[in-house]
Amino acid sequence: MAHPAFVKHQQTLEQALSAIANRGYWTPYPETPSPKNYGEQAAETGKAAFEAHLGKQFELDQPGQTGWHGGENSPYGIDLNIEYPVCEPDALVAASKQAMVQWQAIGAQGRTGVCLEILHRINQQSFEIAHAVMMTTGQGWMMAFQAGGPHAQDKGLDSVAWAWREQSFIPSEASWEKPQGKNPPIQMRKHFEIVGRGVGLVIGCGTFPTWNTYPGLFAALATGNGVIVKPHSNAILPAAITVRTVRAVLSEYGIDPNLVSLCVAPNRSVTQTLATHPDIKSVDFTGGNSFGQWLYDHCPQANVYAELAGVNNIVIDSTDSYKTMLGNIAFTLSLYSGQMCTTTQAIFVPAGGIQTDEGHKSFDEVCADLGKAIGRLLAKPEVALAVLGAIQSKDTEARIELANSGALGKVIQPSQALANPDFPNATVRAPVLLTCDAQDEAAYMEERFGPISFVVKVADTAAAIALSERVVSTHGALTVGIYSTNDAVIQSMTEATWRSKVALSINLTGSVLVNQSAGFSDYHGTGGNPAANAAYTDAAFVANRFRVIQRRYHI
Amino acid sequence: MAHPAFVKHQQTLEQALSAIANRGYWTPYPETPSPKNYGEQAAETGKAAFEAHLGKQFELDQPGQTGWHGGENSPYGIDLNIEYPVCEPDALVAASKQAMVQWQAIGAQGRTGVCLEILHRINQQSFEIAHAVMMTTGQGWMMAFQAGGPHAQDKGLDSVAWAWREQSFIPSEASWEKPQGKNPPIQMRKHFEIVGRGVGLVIGCGTFPTWNTYPGLFAALATGNGVIVKPHSNAILPAAITVRTVRAVLSEYGIDPNLVSLCVAPNRSVTQTLATHPDIKSVDFTGGNSFGQWLYDHCPQANVYAELAGVNNIVIDSTDSYKTMLGNIAFTLSLYSGQMCTTTQAIFVPAGGIQTDEGHKSFDEVCADLGKAIGRLLAKPEVALAVLGAIQSKDTEARIELANSGALGKVIQPSQALANPDFPNATVRAPVLLTCDAQDEAAYMEERFGPISFVVKVADTAAAIALSERVVSTHGALTVGIYSTNDAVIQSMTEATWRSKVALSINLTGSVLVNQSAGFSDYHGTGGNPAANAAYTDAAFVANRFRVIQRRYHI
Repeated sequence: MAHPAFVKHQQTLEQALSAIANRGYWTPYPETPSPKNYGEQAAETGKAAFEAHLGKQFELDQPGQTGWHGGENSPYGIDLNIEYPVCEPDALVAASKQAMVQWQAIGAQGRTGVCLEILHRINQQSFEIAHAVMMTTGQGWMMAFQAGGPHAQDKGLDSVAWAWREQSFIPSEASWEKPQGKNPPIQMRKHFEIVGRGVGLVIGCGTFPTWNTYPGLFAALATGNGVIVKPHSNAILPAAITVRTVRAVLSEYGIDPNLVSLCVAPNRSVTQTLATHPDIKSVDFTGGNSFGQWLYDHCPQANVYAELAGVNNIVIDSTDSYKTMLGNIAFTLSLYSGQMCTTTQAIFVPAGGIQTDEGHKSFDEVCADLGKAIGRLLAKPEVALAVLGAIQSKDTEARIELANSGALGKVIQPSQALANPDFPNATVRAPVLLTCDAQDEAAYMEERFGPISFVVKVADTAAAIALSERVVSTHGALTVGIYSTNDAVIQSMTEATWRSKVALSINLTGSVLVNQSAGFSDYHGTGGNPAANAAYTDAAFVANRFRVIQRRYHI
Repeated sequence: MAHPAFVKHQQTLEQALSAIANRGYWTPYPETPSPKNYGEQAAETGKAAFEAHLGKQFELDQPGQTGWHGGENSPYGIDLNIEYPVCEPDALVAASKQAMVQWQAIGAQGRTGVCLEILHRINQQSFEIAHAVMMTTGQGWMMAFQAGGPHAQDKGLDSVAWAWREQSFIPSEASWEKPQGKNPPIQMRKHFEIVGRGVGLVIGCGTFPTWNTYPGLFAALATGNGVIVKPHSNAILPAAITVRTVRAVLSEYGIDPNLVSLCVAPNRSVTQTLATHPDIKSVDFTGGNSFGQWLYDHCPQANVYAELAGVNNIVIDSTDSYKTMLGNIAFTLSLYSGQMCTTTQAIFVPAGGIQTDEGHKSFDEVCADLGKAIGRLLAKPEVALAVLGAIQSKDTEARIELANSGALGKVIQPSQALANPDFPNATVRAPVLLTCDAQDEAAYMEERFGPISFVVKVADTAAAIALSERVVSTHGALTVGIYSTNDAVIQSMTEATWRSKVALSINLTGSVLVNQSAGFSDYHGTGGNPAANAAYTDAAFVANRFRVIQRRYHI
């Protein structure tokens, strides 16, 4: 008999399976925060739920609790003052491992159903989570709602669908009957048990605490594993709300909630202790290269799925829509002050300039016009504040100052500080746009996380494409773009991306940005260049998180 | 239009897909070497083809050739005197990488079709390959034919089927249409290109040069990669014949044959150079722990799929068929003189003895009766020679001598040397059976490759199951078995294997042996214990060998 949660959500699952196969547009989680989608009370209730967390201890009833820890600083400058349980890592791991026995026993169908119910419940909390994401990350409200809510839920469901596809292919039993000529056949019965590899550790990032956490969380969970969520020290609340909901739904279905827990700790060594724990069998990580490399080097007992730094880039060869091209790029550079792992950092432009529908534009004109396009986009303060959000970390602020100083390249347009009347203590900064020569590799060929971009002068289009390929192959990238009216150039760029293994956006001049990745349709990361060793989400992201244990006997 | 090779073999592919889903008995490659299956002339032609290789240079027309190298010693003591091309590793890698462009361009359907044609042609060479396997590995004729021929082909097809399942799920194009309320929808076209990770290196072993090579070879090839096959220095010929056929079929379909090449080298450093080459993106390895660990530690640029050493074991609790149980185990220990990665090494028996259909048997009686069962099986020389084959390496001979000396435990039955009238120089050795206590871990708790087994005295059945679990978890195993008439004991052992992640055979008393693994039905290795980090074959074995590179644009 099918698990009740599976029955409840079977239609959603079937649509998700169809979506990952067809890769068209689809979502069960509306991205518009309207009463029509979420109910008349949702906005108010969600805001109240968020505010109720402030200044409180966030109870989770986890094992091994030794104290409380908080310390999140809101980029919007409001006081959060929330404390979270600090628990012994060993206790969390042991309890999760123990709970995996039950989780294995309800089978892939039960797990899939429960995961879908969890996502459904998280979707109902989209407003609460959106406020939590906004106030911990500095995202603008609409992005916090969409990327922190429904789009993150899409990524979780994407993982659940892939996990179901792989697990549902494994039969629970088989009859094996080998003919023996005139003698009776050899007959065996075989059973195939899907067993999770072991407890998963999911390490979140400070900018997208749900969007980047849900793929690993749901991939590990759906395939039979317990999960310990270790959020970024400055973006705990969205993860804590998520973990509380996961635990509540598990309990409702009779599963030990300690299968999934939140790990908050005053110092990084706890993360290292967890990541190298012999019972931790997978680590999902989004963050910097140095800790990522540390994980690659020190966790041989676990499969590590890591999204690290990269140097996303765009090649501009030519365009038949100069103004909208500039507008599109300006929006990419400005959105959430460039604090996306997919934001363009380097824009490669031929030294001789480019052909456009407005005639030939010299290299310097392209630089200046892009600077102006950013200025135009951010001219209205209410638009600017909504698009930019706030700066998430002091490190990003420092990088902006460095770029503004001219130390990294000639400043086309410096970053401006903006005041946010609703949040007087918010740190709001517009993008800084620099220019340099292709040979100034030290400047642009490492990730400068934040609203810092370079228009890089290259010899010609062919050199730009070759440089893009080399940057991606050696430093990684999640996104690249090309603007060209020439099919041969687009084909050349396409083939370069096959070699460097990066997703390509071509001639984006409308509302879709190179840094946006749509659930069920776009692969986020390819797993084939240094920016990420896995894609969110594909078969490889889920298939090695469980193993098939068979037994056989004669009948 | 479908690729002609795909059309030709589509029915076989569909049956294979059904077989990996249902996991019943199926094969397109008959395991009986009869004229009915392979034609009246096949046996003779195959033997002649094998003999034609002897004393010759095996031409392959590969790039970068600098000389010739051979040196295989037949365990049957015949002279082989075959030399193979020695080529610059860099030249092989560069040529393979170059050929991958074409291989990518024909797409998953083309690659799958060509792989199926290759397997079909290899199947037609089963007799030739069987002689090559027999004479390089020491396998008996029937095993060499079956395991070296059709069963190895099954494993190759298993990989091709899984690779097709994963690749065929990726659409080549998608239309993405996002509604915008009353405004026109946003419309994009997306393309998804399947791109192999890069050249694969497949490192063969000395005992199963085709069975253990074909899974990695075909998994890498089908998913868009070139492959360099580095055979064991003493079992080159089966790999060389395979590579020649692969290259011939590639050429027939217009693909640069240098996509796949054979690497033979006088010293191991060449393998290390290849394995760490920046363009080598996967390494498939079957062999010892020390080189396996070296690969894990030194090849961060590649995904390593390794089958290493293990301590396969059986727990005997009770049986209702004592005689056939002993006969089954005796066959397992004797087959190919225990030189299988799946052969049982440790047999855990309660100190108080076991209940059987012939009454209670003391621990000592079980030891003695198993020794006698081996003696009975090998009493007829023609049977003994067919079952045992010959000893593949001097190292195995030395291990047999050590065991015979009593240094590893009390000798129940020493290994006997047998003469083979057809091959007077063959090294033929029957199994040595030892006994020791559970605490003598140094003796039995490391792999003693070859016909060396221990009946280990444990306190009781519960202790035996716990010991089996610990051995598998810490030292690895590809196979474990249980004999019991008690359902609770079988359940307890089953749950132990879920934790230690190893395949279980229950109460085998007929013609199926614990060390046999059936293509399309049994998973060989689970990938969840130290004996192997991957299963042959499952989704995880193929899905990370290719990446999906997308491009998108507005329409």
